[in-house]
Amino acid sequence: MAATDTVRILLPGNRDYEIRIGSGLMDERSSWQGLPKAGAAVVVSNETVAPLFAERLRSQLLSVYPRVDLVVLPDGEQHKDWASLNRICDHLLGEAMDRRTVLFALGGGVIGDMTGFAAAIYMRGVPFVQVPTTLLAQVDSSVGGKTAINHPLGKNMLGAFYQPERVIADLDTLDSLPDRELRAGLAEVIKYGPIADAGFLCWIEDNLDALLARDKAVLGYAVRRSCEIKAEVVGQDEREQGLRAILNFGHTIGHAIEAGLGYGAWLHGEAVACGMVLAADLSQRLGLMPAGFVARLRALIERADLPVQPPKLGAERYLQLMRVDKKAEAGEIRFVLIEELGRAGLHAVPDALIAETLAAHGAA
Amino acid sequence: MAATDTVRILLPGNRDYEIRIGSGLMDERSSWQGLPKAGAAVVVSNETVAPLFAERLRSQLLSVYPRVDLVVLPDGEQHKDWASLNRICDHLLGEAMDRRTVLFALGGGVIGDMTGFAAAIYMRGVPFVQVPTTLLAQVDSSVGGKTAINHPLGKNMLGAFYQPERVIADLDTLDSLPDRELRAGLAEVIKYGPIADAGFLCWIEDNLDALLARDKAVLGYAVRRSCEIKAEVVGQDEREQGLRAILNFGHTIGHAIEAGLGYGAWLHGEAVACGMVLAADLSQRLGLMPAGFVARLRALIERADLPVQPPKLGAERYLQLMRVDKKAEAGEIRFVLIEELGRAGLHAVPDALIAETLAAHGAA
Repeated sequence: MAATDTVRILLPGNRDYEIRIGSGLMDERSSWQGLPKAGAAVVVSNETVAPLFAERLRSQLLSVYPRVDLVVLPDGEQHKDWASLNRICDHLLGEAMDRRTVLFALGGGVIGDMTGFAAAIYMRGVPFVQVPTTLLAQVDSSVGGKTAINHPLGKNMLGAFYQPERVIADLDTLDSLPDRELRAGLAEVIKYGPIADAGFLCWIEDNLDALLARDKAVLGYAVRRSCEIKAEVVGQDEREQGLRAILNFGHTIGHAIEAGLGYGAWLHGEAVACGMVLAADLSQRLGLMPAGFVARLRALIERADLPVQPPKLGAERYLQLMRVDKKAEAGEIRFVLIEELGRAGLHAVPDALIAETLAAHGAA
Repeated sequence: MAATDTVRILLPGNRDYEIRIGSGLMDERSSWQGLPKAGAAVVVSNETVAPLFAERLRSQLLSVYPRVDLVVLPDGEQHKDWASLNRICDHLLGEAMDRRTVLFALGGGVIGDMTGFAAAIYMRGVPFVQVPTTLLAQVDSSVGGKTAINHPLGKNMLGAFYQPERVIADLDTLDSLPDRELRAGLAEVIKYGPIADAGFLCWIEDNLDALLARDKAVLGYAVRRSCEIKAEVVGQDEREQGLRAILNFGHTIGHAIEAGLGYGAWLHGEAVACGMVLAADLSQRLGLMPAGFVARLRALIERADLPVQPPKLGAERYLQLMRVDKKAEAGEIRFVLIEELGRAGLHAVPDALIAETLAAHGAA
């Protein structure tokens, strides 16, 4: 894939932005031109990603900004917390960075969420750019302006809707991605099929081997199509008043698995993959989808070597964790369920039915 | 003043809201009707204000919400920090409050800023209502959607623009306000004269004694006129891209005093009062205003028994503290200066001139 694909997120109030997808974008001058002017830029990254890309990004940014700092955080979902967020803010304040300062999130979903949240609150808002280096961040978390940190009592519980200036998804950064993380990212790619595009689900089934083999052209299409679907949904419902919730297919149980096991035990994509299997099962139990769909989705997730078997936390613990889910209301747990292939909706599900699904999968 | 005054803040995106000003509003059913529906409300207050008003507010809210919790924080600017913010978030998460939950900020500016910020970030945003019980909060901080916490390196450095659903300013709550806090609030009332309304400055001069004697009708007019001016400014420039900065007249040096002495040593309004005297002096040194204006403003502030003499922190320390001010850019300190009576603007001021003003007031 030589060409650069561009997907545009359309938002009111002059906040449109571009997602650029392609090989070699990190080293392309144009990736970093036309961004807000500032006296300084700050690259936020983690201990794993910084050694790989931080100096390359810095040298590019130094052609645009007089000063480029680097803040390196510990790696992992378990560090997506107040302490890490404060390290970003402490650096900005310690260096007397003004409110034109541009932040660059160089890394996966955790770095993107934390850097975006820091940008949202530093001096009540400074501009930021997403430079996602994992498949999961390129297809999902870097796009759409959800930022957050975790709280011991729930995932992404403190955060803001805050849009980046641009997203630069350099496919070459995926070359160094561990297999486990690539597969975790595929979970979010798979997600877009059942919720929005039956044809895309078929395409993933047909191209899964090429995706796992990191065929650049196939990966490029997967990233672009995922971003197109997300852009359309976010453009219609930026602040998750309704439609946007469908992007959380698999996330209700997924978040409970992550919080229940302790953040970092399972990767986010792994938890979402397993959560989709159980949400598909709930869709069937509510008579929305046939058994064939559940088997099909489960088979695809198994082929991607992602978990289909939830950890045995007990039904009570699962229910307790899910009641603090952001989609819950008045104590009622709500799931994104598939209504037909390519269409999803939010459904309140009785505790007893959730317990049945959990028991059927050995989680209770 | 028997009647209720209503000032409307006009904002794009269906976010208009009302400031209601009057006596007895806390106990009026209509104050709490027509707010977003929810399964629970949470009143956030502090150790000083909660014993006075929390039960009265709770009993009113119980006619609207099935459940009303109370979170009581320590009192004082020195507690406007991560730790207090976390206490609000911990309560919300610990009680599994969903994202319809409505927060009520019952107190002064510190409680309003922290509760608003908690509302802005909890689950990426829940509704909140301001119930200001100090003059400063009624005329300034509860209106306009600026929320924040302090950082050891600077005041209000972490926060969000996040608008309340309504502001209920019950003038009767001012009856129990300590004299020192009443005067601190008058600093922000005085501020509106030089920056926006020369006639209002005359009115304050004519009515200062009645204000200090807490004449309810006079206080009511001061609150209403202050809110009208603020509403007009905020409606034109919600996110402080330009005009809104004029509301920070006196705040650049004021914030430096607060941070330099340690939060809570001086009240915010006291620091702003002193900051206005020095900013007026800078306006004169830059040839924008005559000496008579400086003397007139200083005399009014002295009559209100507010400080006109800055603490002796040394010029270097002042400059260092002011360089992290949110209005600073590229290391240049910018002040809101008076350009003519009733009109203000943002001006970059050379360090040497600032040092002169500081020295002339015994602060260097």
